[in-house]
Amino acid sequence: MTEAATTRRSRITPEREAELYEAVLDLLREVGYEALTMDAVAARTRSSKATLYRQWGSKPELIAKALRHNKPTSLDEIDTGSLRGDIHAMMARSDDCQMDRDAALMRGLFHAIHGNAELHQALRQLLIEPELDHLNTLLRRAVDRGEVAADNPALDFVIHMLVGGFVARDLIEDRTVDREFLTSYIDAVILPALGI
Amino acid sequence: MTEAATTRRSRITPEREAELYEAVLDLLREVGYEALTMDAVAARTRSSKATLYRQWGSKPELIAKALRHNKPTSLDEIDTGSLRGDIHAMMARSDDCQMDRDAALMRGLFHAIHGNAELHQALRQLLIEPELDHLNTLLRRAVDRGEVAADNPALDFVIHMLVGGFVARDLIEDRTVDREFLTSYIDAVILPALGI
Repeated sequence: MTEAATTRRSRITPEREAELYEAVLDLLREVGYEALTMDAVAARTRSSKATLYRQWGSKPELIAKALRHNKPTSLDEIDTGSLRGDIHAMMARSDDCQMDRDAALMRGLFHAIHGNAELHQALRQLLIEPELDHLNTLLRRAVDRGEVAADNPALDFVIHMLVGGFVARDLIEDRTVDREFLTSYIDAVILPALGI
Repeated sequence: MTEAATTRRSRITPEREAELYEAVLDLLREVGYEALTMDAVAARTRSSKATLYRQWGSKPELIAKALRHNKPTSLDEIDTGSLRGDIHAMMARSDDCQMDRDAALMRGLFHAIHGNAELHQALRQLLIEPELDHLNTLLRRAVDRGEVAADNPALDFVIHMLVGGFVARDLIEDRTVDREFLTSYIDAVILPALGI
């Protein structure tokens, strides 16, 4: 954070700021980016709209800040000795409730990020890149162990398959993703595509 | 259409109605469901808001009608003799521009369908079920030919993998789906998961 930004925000305690960002993300999950108004943020957080605009400038800035404030879930070292074990362990870090919340956040932002590079970047940093980095670590290790051929073309598409599990469960089946579904999906599709 | 509905809409020619629905879908692709206003529809279609409300009642009704009016693309019989040929032929029916338009429509509706069963149903009938039916025909034929084992668990998840290709290309790679990408994805992921 720049010094100017720190000063601009100095009248809000870090606790209050964290609480406000959490309320913004909750609203985003409920109504989506386009329908989220500064009025609703003001009402939900018992702030004045003047304060919100003074502190954050605009709705896209406030939402991007709220996304960036949320630390990505920690990527504790997973190393079970097999890709199958590693991928299942990676999925098992999130409980069903957390998956629901992440899926709602994605849905709420899915259209808006197309017209807003800053917002897309904030979503990438919060939800996408940490998962992708971690996934790539597991996959590299499986290649090093000789479990997956280094030139297996499916290696580039594991994240696409995973995202498909989340989105299609929602869109096609009208059901929320849970660990039971993900477990079957990983075994039926992702591991076989990798030749396991 | 019920007789009452026909009467209610009798002052609009079918050509004008089709033009109006097309404009509604274009707006939906551009701004998304939540940000689409009846004012914008009125301006884009040079109608009065009073006419729109009199004819369609409300924004969700108008949008569901616009979705249902669009006939799904015709599912010409594809039968190349192999699943690989069939799936590639199925994808080749849409050009890159049509894929873009379908993806934009999905994005525009993705959050809204969660709170609106009627809208979800309309989207399912337009874009999802015809594809799913056709895909299941191709897959059943591959099983009958002995190309895919009848108990291959990936058979239930082909649509999930396909949706993943569309969405993740967008969300993760920030690129639009085109036929070149889909071709690689089908060969790298979908056919191997099916044991081909």
